[in-house]
Amino acid sequence: MTVEVPVPGAAAVHTSRPATARVGMVGGGQLARMTHAAAIDLGIDLYVLAVHPDEPATLAGAITRLGSPDDLEALRAFAVEVDVVTLDHELVSDEGLAALAASGHPVRPSAAALLYAKDKLHARTELAALGLPVPPFAPVDTVEDVTAFATQHGWPVVCKATRGGYDGRGVEVVHDPEVAAAVLARGGRWMVEAHVDIAVEVAVVTARRPGGEHVTYPVVETVQQDGQLVELVQPARIAPEVAERAIALGTRVAEAVDGVGIVAVELFVGPDGAITLNELALRPHNSGHATIEAATTSQFHNHLRAVLDWPLGATSLRAPAAALVNLLGPEGPDRIAERLPAALAVSEAAVHLYGKASRPGRKIGHVTVLGEDAEVALARAREVADLLVGPGGRSTRSET
Amino acid sequence: MTVEVPVPGAAAVHTSRPATARVGMVGGGQLARMTHAAAIDLGIDLYVLAVHPDEPATLAGAITRLGSPDDLEALRAFAVEVDVVTLDHELVSDEGLAALAASGHPVRPSAAALLYAKDKLHARTELAALGLPVPPFAPVDTVEDVTAFATQHGWPVVCKATRGGYDGRGVEVVHDPEVAAAVLARGGRWMVEAHVDIAVEVAVVTARRPGGEHVTYPVVETVQQDGQLVELVQPARIAPEVAERAIALGTRVAEAVDGVGIVAVELFVGPDGAITLNELALRPHNSGHATIEAATTSQFHNHLRAVLDWPLGATSLRAPAAALVNLLGPEGPDRIAERLPAALAVSEAAVHLYGKASRPGRKIGHVTVLGEDAEVALARAREVADLLVGPGGRSTRSET
Repeated sequence: MTVEVPVPGAAAVHTSRPATARVGMVGGGQLARMTHAAAIDLGIDLYVLAVHPDEPATLAGAITRLGSPDDLEALRAFAVEVDVVTLDHELVSDEGLAALAASGHPVRPSAAALLYAKDKLHARTELAALGLPVPPFAPVDTVEDVTAFATQHGWPVVCKATRGGYDGRGVEVVHDPEVAAAVLARGGRWMVEAHVDIAVEVAVVTARRPGGEHVTYPVVETVQQDGQLVELVQPARIAPEVAERAIALGTRVAEAVDGVGIVAVELFVGPDGAITLNELALRPHNSGHATIEAATTSQFHNHLRAVLDWPLGATSLRAPAAALVNLLGPEGPDRIAERLPAALAVSEAAVHLYGKASRPGRKIGHVTVLGEDAEVALARAREVADLLVGPGGRSTRSET
Repeated sequence: MTVEVPVPGAAAVHTSRPATARVGMVGGGQLARMTHAAAIDLGIDLYVLAVHPDEPATLAGAITRLGSPDDLEALRAFAVEVDVVTLDHELVSDEGLAALAASGHPVRPSAAALLYAKDKLHARTELAALGLPVPPFAPVDTVEDVTAFATQHGWPVVCKATRGGYDGRGVEVVHDPEVAAAVLARGGRWMVEAHVDIAVEVAVVTARRPGGEHVTYPVVETVQQDGQLVELVQPARIAPEVAERAIALGTRVAEAVDGVGIVAVELFVGPDGAITLNELALRPHNSGHATIEAATTSQFHNHLRAVLDWPLGATSLRAPAAALVNLLGPEGPDRIAERLPAALAVSEAAVHLYGKASRPGRKIGHVTVLGEDAEVALARAREVADLLVGPGGRSTRSET
C-alpha cells in the first residue's frame, strides 16, 4: 500500500496553480533528486515512489509517496496521480510495469524496453540477433558450460549474473574453472562472455521520444573501477571517426530497444578501434551527469521532456572539455559537511551532493569541472574530490 | 506565530543525514525557489518563511514554515532552526531583523545593510556622503518642495516613494506641479531626483562574504519598462573602460553598505559614459538570473556560499553572450502549461517557470539563451517568451 507523506502546499498545487505536468518516478535516489531539480525549472511536479522517507529526492523536496516498487497496489495508486510513470532504477517488477501499462497508464520506458537493462542475457540475445556487435556470450548453468565456452574463446571469461547486478556487482572476470564454480554457487542465473580487449570505455547518451525523435550527447569517455564509473571526460578523447561510429551504434541501440527517455549505452573501444556493446541503462545515467553544467540541456531536463513527449533540448557542449569525478563514501565517518568549505575554494568546480548517508564506496555525490583542456579539468575535479572524501575516497570499492 | 508544515523526511534529515548547512530565507518567492535548486546541489537544507503554502519555493520543495515576516515570534522560531537567516525580499521589519541579530542569530545581510535597499532616501544620503555618483536628490513633503527642486534641476523630475516601491512602482517621472501634487497625495514619504539622461542601464552583481571577500559577475545590460526589468544581455555591450568603471563602482557600493550575500547595483550610463547610481538590492536579483546557465557559478549558489561564509565560486561566463527575457503574465488566462511544449521546440532555450499563478504583468518565469552573439540570443529568447505568454506578454504593465 501507499503511505501518503504530507507535502507543503500539495493541496494548493492542484487548485490554484496546476503544474505544467506531473511526472512519477519510481525510486527516490540521486537520479530522481537531480531530475527534481530539472522539474523545478519546467514547472513540473515530480512525484517519487520511495521506500524510505530519507531518500535523496525526498530530501530535495520531490513529492513523495512511500511504497515498494514491487507492490502493484502501490504502483497503481502512484500512477493515478501522475501523467506518466518513469524510473530512477531498474528494480521494478516486469509484471507491475506491464499491469500499469495494461491499465492505460503511460510507462516510459516500457516494460519491454526496460528488460534490456534488467536482463543481460535478454539484451545480448536480442541485440546479437539484430547483428549488433556484442562480445561472444552464452548462458551457463554449470562449470562445464563455462569451461566449454572458455575452450572456444579462451580464459579469462567474464561471468555475469543475468539480473540484479549493477555498478560492477554480479560481474566477475574468471580465470579458471575453480573460481567459476564459486561464482555459480552464489545462485541465480549466470551467463558468460568472452573477455574483450579494451583501449577505452565510452558511453553514448541519447534522449528519445515515444515517436522515435531523439537527440544524442557528444560521446562520454568513462573510467571504470571494479565495474563502477569513477571518472568521466566529455567529449571522449577518441578519433572523430570512432566517435561517429559510437554515436551511430548508441542511437541504433536506443531505437532497437524502443527506449523512451534517456538511453545510456556503454561501449568498449578496442585497441584497433572496434566497438563492442557493453551494457545499457534506460534512465538518466552516471555517464550523463556532466551534462548538468556542460550541455545546453541536461540529461535530466531531456529525460523529463522525452517521457512527456515534449520537444527535446539541444545537446551541444558549452565548453571544450568537461571532467567529472564521483564522490565515493570514504572509510570511516562522513566528514563531507566539515570538508565542503575547503573544497569550494577550488572556485571553478561544481559540487553535487546527494544527501545520502556515507558508506565506504557508496556514490554520495560528484564534482564537475569545465575547461579548455580535459586533463586540467580532470585534475581539478580530482583535487576537489580528494578534499571532500579524502585521498582514497575515489578508489574505494563500490557500493551504491 | 509559526505554523509547522510537515515535510517528507524532515525528521530523518536531522537524525540519519545531517545537511551540510541549514539556511533560512525569509520569503518563498521565485528567488527562494531558485536558491532551493542551488541548495540541493550543495546538500544544504533551505528553509523558507512563507506567508502562503503555495509560494514558488514551497512548491519546489523547500522546507516551509508559515508565518509573517513582520511577526517577531515567527522570525525567532524560524531563526532557531537554521544556521543563518537571509532574505528573498526586503519587506522585513528593521526591528525584527535587529532583534534576531541581538539574540545572536546571524542575519545576512544585516538590518543596517538592508536599509540601503529598503529606504531610497537613506541610500541616496549615505552614498552621496561617501562621494559616490548619485543623481541630485532631495526629500520632499510638499508640492512646493518639488517645484523648488525642479526650478534648480529642471523638469521633469523623478518622484520616488522612499520605501515600499519595487519593479517600478513608487517611481514616477513628473513633468509639472499638478502631477507632483497627485503623486504626493498618495501618502507616504517621498523624495525627488533629477531626471538622468540614460544611454543604457546596467547592473553589477557581486557576491560578498562577511569578511569582505567578494566576486563580481561581468556587467549586465538591462532593459527596463515601466521600471521593471524585462530583458537583459550579459556581458553588457558597453566599452571595456565603462564596464571597468561600473564594476569598480558596484563593488565599492557593496563594500560601502557592508552587504553580505548577493548585492546587485543598478547603474545608469549616460550618453557621455558617465555612470550614476540607481538602486540596489541585497539579495539574488533578476539581473543575475542568466548566471544559472551563463556563469561557472550561479548567483544563487554564490548567495548561499556568501551567507554561509564559504569560499565563493568563479563568476566567469561560459559563452560569449547570454540573453534573458522575463515572462510576464499575459492578459487573460494563463496558458503556460498548454504552450510549453511548442516553446521548447526552440531547443537551445532554457525555460524557468516559477509556479506562480498568472496575473497580467506578473513575473512568472524567464527564458535564457546563450550564444556567440547577443542579438541572436536575444531574438531567440524573445521568440520563446512570445510562444509562452503570447506577443504582448513581454510588454504588459508590471505586477510582481
